Amino acid sequence: MHGGEAIRLGFVGLGLIGGSLALALRESGFASRVIAWDAQPEVLLQARSLGVIDAVADDLAALMAEVDVAVLATPTRACEGLLAQMLEQPGAARCITDVASVKGGLCAVARGMGPARAARFVPGHPIAGSERSGVGAARADLFAGHRVILTPDDDTDPGALALVEAMWTSAGALPQCMGIEEHDAVLAATSHLPHVLAYALVDGLAQSPLRSDIFRFAAGGFRDFTRIASSDPVMWRDIALANRSALLDSIDEFSRHLQELRAAIDRGDATALEQTFRAAKTARDQFARELAARGRTDAAPADGEGE
Amino acid sequence: MHGGEAIRLGFVGLGLIGGSLALALRESGFASRVIAWDAQPEVLLQARSLGVIDAVADDLAALMAEVDVAVLATPTRACEGLLAQMLEQPGAARCITDVASVKGGLCAVARGMGPARAARFVPGHPIAGSERSGVGAARADLFAGHRVILTPDDDTDPGALALVEAMWTSAGALPQCMGIEEHDAVLAATSHLPHVLAYALVDGLAQSPLRSDIFRFAAGGFRDFTRIASSDPVMWRDIALANRSALLDSIDEFSRHLQELRAAIDRGDATALEQTFRAAKTARDQFARELAARGRTDAAPADGEGE
Repeated sequence: MHGGEAIRLGFVGLGLIGGSLALALRESGFASRVIAWDAQPEVLLQARSLGVIDAVADDLAALMAEVDVAVLATPTRACEGLLAQMLEQPGAARCITDVASVKGGLCAVARGMGPARAARFVPGHPIAGSERSGVGAARADLFAGHRVILTPDDDTDPGALALVEAMWTSAGALPQCMGIEEHDAVLAATSHLPHVLAYALVDGLAQSPLRSDIFRFAAGGFRDFTRIASSDPVMWRDIALANRSALLDSIDEFSRHLQELRAAIDRGDATALEQTFRAAKTARDQFARELAARGRTDAAPADGEGE
Repeated sequence: MHGGEAIRLGFVGLGLIGGSLALALRESGFASRVIAWDAQPEVLLQARSLGVIDAVADDLAALMAEVDVAVLATPTRACEGLLAQMLEQPGAARCITDVASVKGGLCAVARGMGPARAARFVPGHPIAGSERSGVGAARADLFAGHRVILTPDDDTDPGALALVEAMWTSAGALPQCMGIEEHDAVLAATSHLPHVLAYALVDGLAQSPLRSDIFRFAAGGFRDFTRIASSDPVMWRDIALANRSALLDSIDEFSRHLQELRAAIDRGDATALEQTFRAAKTARDQFARELAARGRTDAAPADGEGE
């Protein structure tokens, strides 16, 4: 419940993230009723039989007419077109939010529809995932203790923002606000760039004449470093393209650092190498300590985690 | 024992790797006596009190005179000078081997001393490690099930090679031969390059104006990807310089692949991105399955694993 009020919740697209949010908000009592629409009808049948949703909406207009909060939770590629359709519906929904990994394009779509319509859109991105996907993998505790970044702007309706914050808090998550461009730059640096580096490394090694020895003698360090290269190629293709500008900046910044290190190795500059390695170790050790202090000390996730 | 024969074993440098090998070979009965020399006398006192060695050698000459197999197990930087000294000793040792991560420079030192002296040097590299270091962290099972790469050449004495193979087998490891240059190229690709990439990424992000948000919102995928950036900066400085040529080739090859991916992102080439990501996922999934089948399915190691 939100201030004692029963919230009717609707999902446009229902996979791991949407399904887990539905389960969490039913369990917490925040949602009095959950309905969903998905381009794949069999997903909705599965969600009903699993008890993830109460009912199936016939179409987007029907969904928007029946809910207080509408959550856009489709794969990245479909988001922009669907958001525009959702914002066009007059409907009852006081608030529209999403869970996409990239915010710039979606926010531009909302802004392009004028401040009145954009006001009820509260962009969101839960920093959580699993190596599994689909509504069958949904878990009520997926967001427990995880951060959710919200990127409202000056046009965002404060009531809509408060409702989305209350929703994530009720799911056990920690919502925090951030600028749109800052979000996309931070996610490019911490998630999208590492995926591109891991994919580039493994694809390059797979084409090497030493391929068989490379994979035969690689060990635990390589396994961890390349774990994210086991992620869903279609999902990451779409994220890379959706966050193109920030990701290109991240790649270029990384390439400059790599070339500096390369030059230090080439000229045998032990001092420069040790300084760089030590600075990186210091920063990384501190990060690992802080992550552990946040209670995320669980063992490394299985392969292909989708953050 | 080796064919029923009691082997006297000597270590030049005694840390995690040498200490673990000493423990394993005492436990298996391969070694009848273990002595050691180290530049730090307190390490030798500790090793004796822990029961890792039987006695301390006064110097290199004394050690070489008293053992059948001499194992060079110092940090990378000291290896070349010490190997030359060991090969110069007439001594009893029928065989000298080492555990260094890079083989080219050491093998060149041995070759430079002429085929007669080089013949009893069997270069070796166990693909095993731990986040801990020092003889106090030594464990008899450190090499169990792990591969050891040996890089003999045409000059290597077959008896010396057989003795080193028997030694590693007795420690529970899986010795396999490989060419010197191939070893250094394979290790550059699977270990040294990933370390450089992780160090470059974390050091770059630590210098970013978004630093605080970057480390605040990074999650499990980033933790795993950057784990190796918590490795010992001095050890990796020395490995990077010892394997400079192969590492530069690996960095350049990787940079070419990264620039291809960058260009695909820049031109919005969804097909190329998906192909690359899919090929990487296929190769990485296969590698992870094979690693698991080798019985290395244990949870990710703690931070700073030294492979």
